[in-house]
Amino acid sequence: MSERDGAAEGANRDGSAEDDDRADRLANTPGKGITPEAADVEPAGPEEFGLVQAWWGGGKGKTTAALGLGMRAVGHGYRVHLLQFMKGGTASVEAVRGEYNAIAALPGFSYETTGHFGWHGFLDGSDDDEHAARAEAALARTRELVDAAGAADLDAPLPLEGDPEDGVHLLLLDEALYAANRDLIDPDDLVDLVENKPDRLELVLTGGHESPDYLLDSADLVTEVRKVKHPFDEGQRARKGAEY
Amino acid sequence: MSERDGAAEGANRDGSAEDDDRADRLANTPGKGITPEAADVEPAGPEEFGLVQAWWGGGKGKTTAALGLGMRAVGHGYRVHLLQFMKGGTASVEAVRGEYNAIAALPGFSYETTGHFGWHGFLDGSDDDEHAARAEAALARTRELVDAAGAADLDAPLPLEGDPEDGVHLLLLDEALYAANRDLIDPDDLVDLVENKPDRLELVLTGGHESPDYLLDSADLVTEVRKVKHPFDEGQRARKGAEY
Repeated sequence: MSERDGAAEGANRDGSAEDDDRADRLANTPGKGITPEAADVEPAGPEEFGLVQAWWGGGKGKTTAALGLGMRAVGHGYRVHLLQFMKGGTASVEAVRGEYNAIAALPGFSYETTGHFGWHGFLDGSDDDEHAARAEAALARTRELVDAAGAADLDAPLPLEGDPEDGVHLLLLDEALYAANRDLIDPDDLVDLVENKPDRLELVLTGGHESPDYLLDSADLVTEVRKVKHPFDEGQRARKGAEY
Repeated sequence: MSERDGAAEGANRDGSAEDDDRADRLANTPGKGITPEAADVEPAGPEEFGLVQAWWGGGKGKTTAALGLGMRAVGHGYRVHLLQFMKGGTASVEAVRGEYNAIAALPGFSYETTGHFGWHGFLDGSDDDEHAARAEAALARTRELVDAAGAADLDAPLPLEGDPEDGVHLLLLDEALYAANRDLIDPDDLVDLVENKPDRLELVLTGGHESPDYLLDSADLVTEVRKVKHPFDEGQRARKGAEY
């Protein structure tokens, strides 16, 4: 008896026919895993959304985690929107960012940005006024989307191809914390947003290398993405398909 | 004219007409962002893949980041496979995990698991032999997939709907580090895997609350996902659409 046979036995806990099928497939593919049967995504309303999540830190994975969160949620049929306050790493949007095409391929996932491509001028400060205007625009746009979510029934399914102005279940505010760190927007405005959001709207904020202390009371889940080792330190540039 | 019209153009630094248009449109849509035009995903080969990335830590975001990485890569047309060594959070696979359906909706992204659903027996240790057998099977399967990648031309596009046995550009080994932490597999086997992978295969390992010190020399990018504040600490269970 191989180790796979053992794996086939406790594969499930409820003894249904589907479970037996799955167990058989597993037993018959020694050394191989199993692939669950995918279902088409049907519109659904989340039962347990409504928290505020924040990711910050010097490591890689903040925007990446936001993408993964969005992916998981749209896989359940929820409506997700990603709004990027600012964005570095490449000089232009066209066809360089894998996330755009992947978002477009996922039903219920939409995207927009107000920010620059590239963190132009951040080293010498020359473009801060323009960055601030764009970050303020993102904040205004966020308020609009939060209000729209408040007017929608977030317990119910929403049209997967609908406008974000019709409400979303999960709103991802990428680099919002970085914009606050940079004083491009007022952290108090983010706190106000978080504390006055609709109860059932799940809100995710990412960005920045400094702890968003101002959010620690009102956020439910805060994660630091800490750099242990990063090839950027050895001169590696951002790579297509990995960092954008 | 809606902000969506602005999406057709793009912000660039090269002074093209499209850049001016986009800037104008942005200026004319205060408080609103733009949406870049999505392209259909066409098969492509990555130019810069070949690193080893690792995520570990007590915070939320390790599997989530792996999903986001996969999403970004398939958006560029690369072939991605996610192999889960083990998985907790729910008692069965059927229809509960948003990531499965979302992966299935993304061209070029495939998935399999060898693990349990639920970390059964981990508190009292009763199921460790079975967990070890499954984790060993995942390791054997990983070697098979790494060998397949070595036999493929990873500079070239791969069929998006092809079997992972035909090679992939990016292999995500979810919870592999947790399996090593738990002594279900030998960390030396992971080191051997990482050090002998094909040069152009990008390898990502996640999992565990302890630093994978054995990997620090051979991995290129290591990130700790550190819990600052988590609702689990206050009794919140894993939520559909957020944690699975």
